[in-house]
Amino acid sequence: MTGLKTSWVASANTADCPFPLNNLPYGVFSTDELEPRCGVAIGDMILDCQAAEEAGLITLDEAAVFDVPFWNDVMEMGTETWVALRARLFEILSTGSADQVQAEPLLVPMADGTLHLPFLVSEYTDFYAGRHHATNVGTMFRGAENALPPNWLHIPIGYNGRASSVVVSGTDIRRPWGQLKSPDHDLPAFLPCRRFDLELEMGAIVGTPSDSPITVDEADAHIFGYVLLNDWSARDIQAWEYQPLGPFQAKATATSISPWIVTKAALEPFRADAPAREFELLPHLRDTGPMLYDIDLRVTLAPKGKAPTEIAHTNYREMYYSAAQQLAHHTSSGCPMTPGDLLGSGTISGADKHERGSLLELSWGGKEPLTLDTGDTRTFLEDGDTLTLRGAAHGDGYTIGFGDCSGTVLPALDDPYKR
Amino acid sequence: MTGLKTSWVASANTADCPFPLNNLPYGVFSTDELEPRCGVAIGDMILDCQAAEEAGLITLDEAAVFDVPFWNDVMEMGTETWVALRARLFEILSTGSADQVQAEPLLVPMADGTLHLPFLVSEYTDFYAGRHHATNVGTMFRGAENALPPNWLHIPIGYNGRASSVVVSGTDIRRPWGQLKSPDHDLPAFLPCRRFDLELEMGAIVGTPSDSPITVDEADAHIFGYVLLNDWSARDIQAWEYQPLGPFQAKATATSISPWIVTKAALEPFRADAPAREFELLPHLRDTGPMLYDIDLRVTLAPKGKAPTEIAHTNYREMYYSAAQQLAHHTSSGCPMTPGDLLGSGTISGADKHERGSLLELSWGGKEPLTLDTGDTRTFLEDGDTLTLRGAAHGDGYTIGFGDCSGTVLPALDDPYKR
Repeated sequence: MTGLKTSWVASANTADCPFPLNNLPYGVFSTDELEPRCGVAIGDMILDCQAAEEAGLITLDEAAVFDVPFWNDVMEMGTETWVALRARLFEILSTGSADQVQAEPLLVPMADGTLHLPFLVSEYTDFYAGRHHATNVGTMFRGAENALPPNWLHIPIGYNGRASSVVVSGTDIRRPWGQLKSPDHDLPAFLPCRRFDLELEMGAIVGTPSDSPITVDEADAHIFGYVLLNDWSARDIQAWEYQPLGPFQAKATATSISPWIVTKAALEPFRADAPAREFELLPHLRDTGPMLYDIDLRVTLAPKGKAPTEIAHTNYREMYYSAAQQLAHHTSSGCPMTPGDLLGSGTISGADKHERGSLLELSWGGKEPLTLDTGDTRTFLEDGDTLTLRGAAHGDGYTIGFGDCSGTVLPALDDPYKR
Repeated sequence: MTGLKTSWVASANTADCPFPLNNLPYGVFSTDELEPRCGVAIGDMILDCQAAEEAGLITLDEAAVFDVPFWNDVMEMGTETWVALRARLFEILSTGSADQVQAEPLLVPMADGTLHLPFLVSEYTDFYAGRHHATNVGTMFRGAENALPPNWLHIPIGYNGRASSVVVSGTDIRRPWGQLKSPDHDLPAFLPCRRFDLELEMGAIVGTPSDSPITVDEADAHIFGYVLLNDWSARDIQAWEYQPLGPFQAKATATSISPWIVTKAALEPFRADAPAREFELLPHLRDTGPMLYDIDLRVTLAPKGKAPTEIAHTNYREMYYSAAQQLAHHTSSGCPMTPGDLLGSGTISGADKHERGSLLELSWGGKEPLTLDTGDTRTFLEDGDTLTLRGAAHGDGYTIGFGDCSGTVLPALDDPYKR
């Protein structure tokens, strides 16, 4: 697939539209009239999949699959269905389509729609698989010589997070309270978080279930699509709690994802190789082809009522491990995987300072405050700050966008136990 | 509630029956004729709740709640419903009940039933909240002086596990493969686990949902009931992977639970105080009453085709943190909790050697093999071994049992990628 494919939805036919016919990402939307339901983005419109199914334009199964506010049923149907659905949507929405007359009334202006979580998150796993990020954090905490733990170059390090805390872009994020211990106090205290941070990540969504170890190629085939992901992190809670069993409440307040699931098919032209391997990976984790993607990633920070400043600019290609390798590792113990499992890539940082995907790295642990275009300075997030992640793969005359992954930090409650 | 309460189901009326009228635990069962459905254990019988609901004997809601193979819907209905249901079951099954004639045909012999997971596990969290266990493990890994991490006496340390790996008692457990590194090798290898272990735990099941921090008393009220739990652990996988983000694949193969949810109401007479606090806990985690339970816990190990040996004997009272404190901590960041969330207590060990709840501790890291009654020796689990956890609260002339939590170790696959 090279070059822009054109649609009879005119707004989709520009080089910088995030949702051209080449993309066709899956979401869940509602309007004043319509209950939450499955939809596909095309230009500045959403095709109502429930209505299209009712009208007989799309048929995946004898039973309805689009009358629910999540894509999990389609995910579980597997690769052949995914291919067939995409082909059918392409046919319906292409320039000159015989279905145009029937489909046109089923379009809803994106401006009229409210977007919801596009799938039920079964379980959520977060990895730590960006080498620049791990090196930066390791250098700050353990010194440059011990920056990467001994296992890091052999295994995609990950931990289980909380699926219940995953929210869709646009959801406000309440600054958490937590147990903290300052270096100058002997005992911990329960206080509002002081070092609240973002983590710029991509999320891979498992479509096909498995209940035994799968190879990297199988894992790649099991992935349904990708979203942008911000793993909000309370660095001071994390510092006190994370030894010996890893992050827990520091990562449990919220994780935001972008509202549209961009399919693997749409990203196919943007596959990119992983970086050179310092140690050859064990056979079950070895690269079998280009499994990363060339996706341009940007983060802006807007203080309350002020203009946004771009604080980071990097690329998903910077990862050391692909989502397929992470998923293969995830199954290596026999761990069953379920449709709707969400795998966070880990924070994505590039080599240069401006390419760092967290304020922890950007402000070097709070020691080097950032100056925003507004003149404000930041070490960590302040109340009222709006964080926005954007991602785009740039093709020949077209763009594959994800929709913003955005959230505003609300002040901590005065008393989190007051009802 | 003191003393044995009698039922017209005669087998329930003995001092050592695990399922007297005082207990009434909730499970899911099927028979050759009946699809999986909700049931209540009484003596050596199961009351078919779906049939009882259809017959009008139990009514919790206008819609049916017992025609599904899980108790989550009842959990979500909240404390008042839990109290009403227990009272009604008590009435139906008591000696002299007016409902006996109608209820008797709805009993299924336990011997004819197959037991399933009693609830859909939403998310699974495992804690590390037994002081003797943490001290033993810490001493082995970091020396006696640094055994307990600095946070341990202030915070119930926990990490998120995999809900998808939770299985019901009786499920065989396949020895996993994983990435391991022996101290005498420079590089890791992908091999079958050599140090496969059990962890004797209790599991607390969240009934009432929450989306903001809750107090210890609220947390106690949100818990629906308890099960026995064996968190199968691959110690060699864990040793290589767990720094810096905690256990991941080492804990993802399987976690077994006992088949009957024992309600908080049944355990009420057995409440026990937590041990003395070395540091006063922060207000939001402070004890507000006896929140542990006096539950006698035993583990047996039976080599293939041989008699079992009791390898551990301890008590749930030995925990440092209660499930209510763990749940309160779990919500402190605002982490949303969902009906069906399962909280593992952490390994339960007492002060003496025979009271240790893992082979890691019993064999002191493999250095002191156990000799079983059969003459066999063990450091870690061998293929064919059957592990059984049993729990009982002993009242005045009656017993509250959980049903066995059992599993047999199957040999690792020759090639986990062969289909």
